[in-house]
Amino acid sequence: MEYSNCWLQYKKISDIKKSAILLFCNTEGKISVNAVRELTLAFQALYGREIIKAKDESDYRDAGSGIFLKRTVPGEIGEEGYHIKCLEGKCMISSVSETGLLYGVFALLRNLQLQKVTDFDTWVWTEEKVPSNPMRMLNHWDNMDGDIERGYSGKSFFFFKDDIIVNDRIKAYARLVSSVGINSVAINNVNVKGAATELISGRYYGKLGSLAEIFGAYGVKLFLSINFAAPVELGGMDTADPCDGRVRTWWAKKAEEIWRNVPELGGFLVKADSEGRPGPFTYKRTHADGANMLADAVKPYGGLVIWRCFVYNCRQDWRDLKTDRAKAGYDNFMPLDGQFSDNVILQIKNGPMDFQVREPVSPLFGGLSETNIMLELQIAQEYTGQQRHVCYLIPWFKEILSHNTCCELEKGTVADIVSCRTYGNNHGGIAAVSNTGKDYNWTGHELAGANLYGFGRLTFDTGLTAEKIAGEWIRQTYGFHEKVRENVTKILMMSWPAYEKYTSPLGIGWMVKPNSHYGPEVDGYEYDRWGTYHRADHKGIGVDRTDSGTGYCSQYNEPLSALYADRNTCPEELLLFFHRVAYDHILSSGNTVLQHIYDTHFEGAAEAETFLNMWEELQGLIDEDAYQRALERFKHQKEHAKEWCDVINSYFYRKTGIEDKYHRSLY
Amino acid sequence: MEYSNCWLQYKKISDIKKSAILLFCNTEGKISVNAVRELTLAFQALYGREIIKAKDESDYRDAGSGIFLKRTVPGEIGEEGYHIKCLEGKCMISSVSETGLLYGVFALLRNLQLQKVTDFDTWVWTEEKVPSNPMRMLNHWDNMDGDIERGYSGKSFFFFKDDIIVNDRIKAYARLVSSVGINSVAINNVNVKGAATELISGRYYGKLGSLAEIFGAYGVKLFLSINFAAPVELGGMDTADPCDGRVRTWWAKKAEEIWRNVPELGGFLVKADSEGRPGPFTYKRTHADGANMLADAVKPYGGLVIWRCFVYNCRQDWRDLKTDRAKAGYDNFMPLDGQFSDNVILQIKNGPMDFQVREPVSPLFGGLSETNIMLELQIAQEYTGQQRHVCYLIPWFKEILSHNTCCELEKGTVADIVSCRTYGNNHGGIAAVSNTGKDYNWTGHELAGANLYGFGRLTFDTGLTAEKIAGEWIRQTYGFHEKVRENVTKILMMSWPAYEKYTSPLGIGWMVKPNSHYGPEVDGYEYDRWGTYHRADHKGIGVDRTDSGTGYCSQYNEPLSALYADRNTCPEELLLFFHRVAYDHILSSGNTVLQHIYDTHFEGAAEAETFLNMWEELQGLIDEDAYQRALERFKHQKEHAKEWCDVINSYFYRKTGIEDKYHRSLY
Repeated sequence: MEYSNCWLQYKKISDIKKSAILLFCNTEGKISVNAVRELTLAFQALYGREIIKAKDESDYRDAGSGIFLKRTVPGEIGEEGYHIKCLEGKCMISSVSETGLLYGVFALLRNLQLQKVTDFDTWVWTEEKVPSNPMRMLNHWDNMDGDIERGYSGKSFFFFKDDIIVNDRIKAYARLVSSVGINSVAINNVNVKGAATELISGRYYGKLGSLAEIFGAYGVKLFLSINFAAPVELGGMDTADPCDGRVRTWWAKKAEEIWRNVPELGGFLVKADSEGRPGPFTYKRTHADGANMLADAVKPYGGLVIWRCFVYNCRQDWRDLKTDRAKAGYDNFMPLDGQFSDNVILQIKNGPMDFQVREPVSPLFGGLSETNIMLELQIAQEYTGQQRHVCYLIPWFKEILSHNTCCELEKGTVADIVSCRTYGNNHGGIAAVSNTGKDYNWTGHELAGANLYGFGRLTFDTGLTAEKIAGEWIRQTYGFHEKVRENVTKILMMSWPAYEKYTSPLGIGWMVKPNSHYGPEVDGYEYDRWGTYHRADHKGIGVDRTDSGTGYCSQYNEPLSALYADRNTCPEELLLFFHRVAYDHILSSGNTVLQHIYDTHFEGAAEAETFLNMWEELQGLIDEDAYQRALERFKHQKEHAKEWCDVINSYFYRKTGIEDKYHRSLY
Repeated sequence: MEYSNCWLQYKKISDIKKSAILLFCNTEGKISVNAVRELTLAFQALYGREIIKAKDESDYRDAGSGIFLKRTVPGEIGEEGYHIKCLEGKCMISSVSETGLLYGVFALLRNLQLQKVTDFDTWVWTEEKVPSNPMRMLNHWDNMDGDIERGYSGKSFFFFKDDIIVNDRIKAYARLVSSVGINSVAINNVNVKGAATELISGRYYGKLGSLAEIFGAYGVKLFLSINFAAPVELGGMDTADPCDGRVRTWWAKKAEEIWRNVPELGGFLVKADSEGRPGPFTYKRTHADGANMLADAVKPYGGLVIWRCFVYNCRQDWRDLKTDRAKAGYDNFMPLDGQFSDNVILQIKNGPMDFQVREPVSPLFGGLSETNIMLELQIAQEYTGQQRHVCYLIPWFKEILSHNTCCELEKGTVADIVSCRTYGNNHGGIAAVSNTGKDYNWTGHELAGANLYGFGRLTFDTGLTAEKIAGEWIRQTYGFHEKVRENVTKILMMSWPAYEKYTSPLGIGWMVKPNSHYGPEVDGYEYDRWGTYHRADHKGIGVDRTDSGTGYCSQYNEPLSALYADRNTCPEELLLFFHRVAYDHILSSGNTVLQHIYDTHFEGAAEAETFLNMWEELQGLIDEDAYQRALERFKHQKEHAKEWCDVINSYFYRKTGIEDKYHRSLY
């Protein structure tokens, strides 16, 4: 096979002969067919046990062992929630929707696998889950030539040579992501150019329809990234002005045409006025004008418009100390709060910059109160080791979600806000830029599978801990060996902090090689136009974002604003993001900033070395191919972490002339 | 037309009615046909005057005005030299070869054009020239997909989609380069991959034969860059070991096949064991083994093997202070002196690094005494502004050629050595990496045409001054306006020193953005594997290449070696190349190194601004299209020179904390 089943391998647990299980399902849609198929496949693989379709409900009742997939009337658990009750050989999974039933089936199978040996016939277990977030989405940055922007797992499995791929792998993908609760997928890059502009044209409707159907059978909605300038580039018009009646008509007709051909489509994802992409600014219109125009067009079909807030001046003069890219999102979108249509969702990156290993949470969370919003995360490890380094991101996502925005209402965490609990919005949720590609293991690095799995699980149930998710993933992916569980858990849980330690310090970010964003280059973006500066000189480093500097701090609600603005209360891991300090500034550890830089870098690099050692202990305990694939990456990570450590430390050593107090090697 | 005639425009000088000129030519080869065509075309265009073929020599004698192209028996002026005598309406051009006659024709036409009005019928003029160098070559780094490595003038006019182009532009190219004395051209990139490996196969012989014929009719030999691993990649063998009998046989047969199909081929150009290219090191053989094996194969056909000396470790550890890339060429090739076959020529870059704006001359010049060698220059402005900045390189080439290597013999300059005057070698000369492409003006920047023109003229006659060459080029390209001559001469002559001033200081080189090599990035290569370091810290900068450092200095002949090793006698423009000094080191100007950096950068940027001003004075005086094309580039150069200035100065200001004594802006 060309691809792995990841955490859906259903490795044999036991094959004690047991009677068949009778299964009854009171609904017959395409999703329930997949639910039944999954159960049948899994019980056979896990226990060598047959599942036989019951004729009717009474047949199920009379059976010794049975499973009932029961579609119920709307109630407490919402559209996609499920209730499971397993009692000595009888298991009932109920939900309002077939999608909920499918989630219940995956939940049952997951929980069975987490037990070393489960006797289904004596098992007593119950679970009720309502997804934490309405939208649980993956954004793929796949280009239609088959490349993936910021892709680290091989080529696209959606596109090849400007055509759409429809094959078994697409189905396997839908099944994988559905099994962790993903319900929305945008398949093409937000930078929509060339053939991708034509996705909303007759050229592609046939295959899009097939994709949407495959996805739909797993409860997943297909979304398309669209080109805001489509009326010009596709329609041959002379404008894409959202307030021009002809443009509005063009989009309305286009939407009618799209949904007539691809009725299951979820809607559009839009990157506008961002890094060179067209948008409403071209026509002196607001982002609300732009988004609402599209929202009107898609509304008759239940379509959504997901509008990205990644809007900033990417042609900044590095000499300019006042302009601050961090402020751009808030400056651009806060004045529009309340102006967006109810089928528009603003998609906001977790931080104000761009997916660095550490950033403060964007002040738009806790700022916008009358707008549907979604959190945008990135599991593609663009700035976190590009799936050559292990970097388990779920602990970072947990921190972001539990961040209290100090908005006036009681439920004020990011998790509360994006789940719609705070403001009672129509729509909300979490999206992640996907880390998948055509590699056998889907994610390049074996252990990056934990990010794909974990993102889904966390968006479905934000109450889960990172450790719990890691444990689930390890058991389902690698089986039951205790040493495997122990070492892989350690590696995963240490990995994000380690990556932070050996890369850019104290929240300042960047310091990567331009374009590739891989490997250290301290001044790589320092004299460039991207608004990402550390401002290091021989005395100090950091950006003053208090009122005496760029004023970014004041975009936060109080008391956060004051907390960040005071270097004594600012979280130390964000010190250089908010403040410019001298290298001899003393941290809570009693060390200077410079000594802290030296220490954390040596520490982080040493930890990367232990990852390799821990992994080497697993040879023979897991699949040899998987072992070897990851082994190469761990070896590289060890070397590359040392490179990071030495470059960063030497840069500051050369700049300051100050020795490491432990006299370790600096160059 | 899709391309300009550059300096062969033959703009009308006068059209006073004059009788036709009778032309007699005592030879009938294809080159003389082109010589006659050129005369006919030029006299018509310049003076509206007809040239009529004389029946025989007495016909010419009897004519009022006549030109005699006379092929003579071998004598003093060698194979390619020519003698011209113009006396009151009669002009005799004589040479041993048709190529010499063609050069004579181009010389006559050039000199006619340099006069504002010449009355051919009363003109008295005589000239005798023997080319200074046997080989006068252009190396094109054109890839077969049509891209050009380090090309800044559009796509390739030799290749498109893995095919060879044969069209009028090829002929125009041959005419252009022949008119300045180029006699050898390698058309494909020295990094030979993919389809280019197959150039020496039946797939391409037909079109190669056509190219070689077109070139041959202008006295230009076609060379091909070959892949040292061709026996494996093309021949399907398991080795390319130059000492393996089967490999030697493969190449012998291959050469027989090549020359049978392309009899006019000049030979091979080889980049081996360099930046990832295969070579004899793979088989633990020497470069002499590799080159001689090929030389044996091509010898029966009069073929030459041009073997590049650009061999160094491109995977260096930046922490390693002892390994020195500058030493690699000498270390690799000096021990082999005397071991190369007589139809091998080593092609050596001017400096030990890679075409920086300033480098010392490679110690292989004045080192190797029993080996045929050629100087390799680069008119493609990879590190000198990429044909977006004006940078007239002929003054720099003049310095290189006049550099005294202090070898034991009397004629010890680089010019002496590569022309074979010093050691009496069989072969020698000068090659340049070409700056041409498919752009209308061939060279991207209008004024980069002066480098193409000048390189040819200088290799043909190394006694010419850079000013003289500039003057020739300006007059032929832009006509006679005095302001044009004055301003363009100023711009050209100031341009290389200005570029040096506003980029990396005092011979240290690099400080460019990795990969693109365009624009400032001081640490771009500092923590990388390429062996190109400035080692700047807060106290000082530079690489100690004396015996207390890497020992590179001792590769030079005495007294050069001692001169470079002493910071008091080392030429200041190379100070940081040879020495590590403190920023407060005092230069001959009385300024510190740091103040010198500040001063030269502000100065250089200001000069770039004057280029724009001087160019703007020419609007209306030259062709408007050409004016506009260059105007855009001058505007960019002004901005980009300021960027260089500010980045470099700010880098050092931040690192040292020392203010500019004139308090200009640092960031």
